[in-house]
Amino acid sequence: MIKINENFLKLQAGYLFPEIARRIRSFKAEHPEAKVISMGIGDVTQPLAPAVTEAMKKAVSDMEKADTFRGYGPEQGYDFLINAIIENDFRSRGVDLEKDEIFISDGAKCDTGNLQEIFALGNIVAVTDPVYPVYVDTNVMAGRAGAAKDKGRYEGIVYMPCTAENNFVPAIPNQPVDLIYLCYPNNPTGAVATREQLKEWVDYAHNNKAIILFDAAYEAFITDPDIPHSIYEIKGARDVAIEFRSFSKTAGFTGIRCAFTVIPKQLNAYTRDGREVEVNSIWSRRHCTKFNGASYISQAGAAAIYTKEGKKQTRQIIDIYMNNAAMIRKSLTKLGYAIYGGVNAPYIWMKTPEGISSWEFFDLLLQKANVVGTPGAGFGSAGEGYFRLTAFAQPACVKEAMERFAAI
Amino acid sequence: MIKINENFLKLQAGYLFPEIARRIRSFKAEHPEAKVISMGIGDVTQPLAPAVTEAMKKAVSDMEKADTFRGYGPEQGYDFLINAIIENDFRSRGVDLEKDEIFISDGAKCDTGNLQEIFALGNIVAVTDPVYPVYVDTNVMAGRAGAAKDKGRYEGIVYMPCTAENNFVPAIPNQPVDLIYLCYPNNPTGAVATREQLKEWVDYAHNNKAIILFDAAYEAFITDPDIPHSIYEIKGARDVAIEFRSFSKTAGFTGIRCAFTVIPKQLNAYTRDGREVEVNSIWSRRHCTKFNGASYISQAGAAAIYTKEGKKQTRQIIDIYMNNAAMIRKSLTKLGYAIYGGVNAPYIWMKTPEGISSWEFFDLLLQKANVVGTPGAGFGSAGEGYFRLTAFAQPACVKEAMERFAAI
Repeated sequence: MIKINENFLKLQAGYLFPEIARRIRSFKAEHPEAKVISMGIGDVTQPLAPAVTEAMKKAVSDMEKADTFRGYGPEQGYDFLINAIIENDFRSRGVDLEKDEIFISDGAKCDTGNLQEIFALGNIVAVTDPVYPVYVDTNVMAGRAGAAKDKGRYEGIVYMPCTAENNFVPAIPNQPVDLIYLCYPNNPTGAVATREQLKEWVDYAHNNKAIILFDAAYEAFITDPDIPHSIYEIKGARDVAIEFRSFSKTAGFTGIRCAFTVIPKQLNAYTRDGREVEVNSIWSRRHCTKFNGASYISQAGAAAIYTKEGKKQTRQIIDIYMNNAAMIRKSLTKLGYAIYGGVNAPYIWMKTPEGISSWEFFDLLLQKANVVGTPGAGFGSAGEGYFRLTAFAQPACVKEAMERFAAI
Repeated sequence: MIKINENFLKLQAGYLFPEIARRIRSFKAEHPEAKVISMGIGDVTQPLAPAVTEAMKKAVSDMEKADTFRGYGPEQGYDFLINAIIENDFRSRGVDLEKDEIFISDGAKCDTGNLQEIFALGNIVAVTDPVYPVYVDTNVMAGRAGAAKDKGRYEGIVYMPCTAENNFVPAIPNQPVDLIYLCYPNNPTGAVATREQLKEWVDYAHNNKAIILFDAAYEAFITDPDIPHSIYEIKGARDVAIEFRSFSKTAGFTGIRCAFTVIPKQLNAYTRDGREVEVNSIWSRRHCTKFNGASYISQAGAAAIYTKEGKKQTRQIIDIYMNNAAMIRKSLTKLGYAIYGGVNAPYIWMKTPEGISSWEFFDLLLQKANVVGTPGAGFGSAGEGYFRLTAFAQPACVKEAMERFAAI
């Protein structure tokens, strides 16, 4: 008799964004005339950079002729893209990486979701609260989270609250943890980590033989020159950290699908009897067995963002979003809301009005202003009383949304 | 201390194709002048159909303007593609499917590799021998295969030998198994399953509450009108079978990445205490949590193969490959080799000459004829003494390869 993986039955409620989509559909069905502005899901709206679409059209043309046709690419990605990444994203910041330390994929959601499976089920996982739900849910599915507790938490996971009270800086756990998910610039709070804060994590990981899973999907939005873009800018991080990057927000690739993961070859995990195992080669085996490379068209497009024109154009797009973020910050601050993030990140994290829960605020905003945001509680129990707005809408929509906020 | 998933350490040797690639690289380094013809890895060589590239260029153009730009698509895929699949691949064969029974993905390798994770670790897995290595290796990684035995087998897996002796028809297991991987048309043997044979499997699954994972990635190569293209052509299969499809071989998408999986909503698995659980909704949760949709460009290209022009053009490409298959069959039969497959499948499965193992034949063929094939033993111990050739090379290359075979 075929048995289901019962860990899936421990998952609480629906995944956050489908639940939001459901409420929007229901609202629109009742109010077909309403012009709903979405500042909820972190999805981009600006068209792709011309350098990118030109490269993708050329890549499609390559597929029209036998002599330039490309079938299966290397599972780890094409050298033309890996070399551009090494040169522009890392060497320029003093970080040297080898080609086989980079794994191109079809998305950071896949990578951050799949990476856990190369580690033993007995490892203790630590996450911030609030947190990107994928880190937690994929560990629940694997059976690493234990039973569900109240407020959406799980018995087997160590939560590190990040609230206005601690300035959104998680405290280093006072118990040993093995696998630490960090996301900077942070989704959802928009907080960033200083060099000193990251150094503390790297030291912790060294001392506890832990591994840091560092999600840097939003590094392109950092404006403060003192904030590290890569955890490898911190000495010693190569021994203990895996870094995730994405072209989704950097270059508007949410519909194109391309991302990458960095696993330094000196990074080790251990067998139960204490032998060192190179994590890079284990992930490589997983990647080659369960994945067949990202689309050639997507990789060609991704490589184009590293050209002179591509850099200029993607920078202009990011500036549009960061102007949105500044507009949101200014408008909502003026309206008396407590506002965080939005300076080095495309996310604005706001406190909901006194006595209104985050889902109540979601419904209120949808009903009264026809504006969609994301309830903070959807990211974890410490997100209760907060609400996330993204800076990814069209500027005209953001302006109108701010006017509607003023009229609530 | 971070512990590795030690199941990965049970994997034997490298994944087959990287090992082949290594031997080719080494040969080419020693013989830079040699013109190697690849009939090894099952990768296509014909350019994409013009209808497909046209649709992909239009899709790239959509990404250039804000009003046609597409960000995240539905994780399960766009309706325009799902509807075309339902209409053309299934309804035309008398199989009715609903939209949410289809999950678009970036590849059948990912789907066949990932699907096992929604089932409990205690399930007994059955595979044919020889077999596509991904089915086995992903179960090893999950911990479902137990310890490695000799000849590349694992203690916990039930193997069903398919050799010339049983006409490549696996015997129904004489012990209860829970998860049965079947691939028809078969990779690597090129065998197909008749309606009656599939009916036996469906009956077995009903009687044992087992689930069949039916890999139909090569259905487009079926020429015999009596052979089913989908397992759902068999009555009762919807209760017990999941079907995998791919555009990789059907339409040359190995570098483009698009595939899909069908999970009927009436298909159930069970909790340990015997409650029914709908597999479709569990996979949907997994798909939405660990995957962010296939590229919009790839999906637009895939939809174009269902247009009138697209159908005609992709059929022409398949005919080229099947002409290759016929040429290989004819030439090698004339040379006295025992040849199987190649009639309803792009794979030709041949017996190696008496006393020569499959890896020895691989090396001999590479050295003497500069032709690359795939050693049968790489697909399982029952593949020893066999060798796989693919029909995917350029016709001129196939012709030359056959001449070189004659000169060995």
